[in-house]
Amino acid sequence: MKTYFINVIAVAIGGALGAILRFSVDLPLYDTYFPINTIIVNLIGSLILGTLTAIYIIKDTREWIKAGLGVGFCGGFTTMSALANDAFVLIENGDILLFTLYLFISFIGGIGLAVLGYVSLMKWKAGDPS
Amino acid sequence: MKTYFINVIAVAIGGALGAILRFSVDLPLYDTYFPINTIIVNLIGSLILGTLTAIYIIKDTREWIKAGLGVGFCGGFTTMSALANDAFVLIENGDILLFTLYLFISFIGGIGLAVLGYVSLMKWKAGDPS
Repeated sequence: MKTYFINVIAVAIGGALGAILRFSVDLPLYDTYFPINTIIVNLIGSLILGTLTAIYIIKDTREWIKAGLGVGFCGGFTTMSALANDAFVLIENGDILLFTLYLFISFIGGIGLAVLGYVSLMKWKAGDPS
Repeated sequence: MKTYFINVIAVAIGGALGAILRFSVDLPLYDTYFPINTIIVNLIGSLILGTLTAIYIIKDTREWIKAGLGVGFCGGFTTMSALANDAFVLIENGDILLFTLYLFISFIGGIGLAVLGYVSLMKWKAGDPS
């Protein structure tokens, strides 16, 4: 029960910080028609979570740190709901090309960067077995 | 400056609550191979944000409430980084069918529910012009 409570606190703090950082990225890009703000947070957040996943395999990490950084920070920093709504606006305006580009960059980019973060760290570790 | 500060506090509280709620959905589904937990939060969060977008058009809403519920709660509740990492695991295991199904449900489902939430509320309002 105590472990669960500590994890929840870590998730709350990580989630709050992630959301504030996302809000900070949103503000200067609020007026851009193409949702570059959502792309930026989703790509960077996916890269960070992929890297963290590799770190947790390489290095034994406490549960509350994993919860705070992964579920909390990365989860709070990235967003699917804004992505869905941004995509809806592009369809509504008939911008099928931008809509397709947006989904392509978000999904392929997000997955690609998660893989990049994970594989890079694993390769780095393989070359440095200290 | 004061407005900005209030918005940041609202985003932080919303982000923390969204992340805790996502963590609560994650826990009982942690061992499922197909990431049904990420699907659930992303679909529900997209539906809520689509509905909120319509509410903000229909009803004049304070900026900090919008920031807290939209950027904070919906952003903190949904996640793109977990989606990217879940998808990576499915590819890594060679589950191309589950990978395709996962992306299809997440994207088409997320966008579809955002549209459903928005359109339903707008139609309800059109039928009730009070």
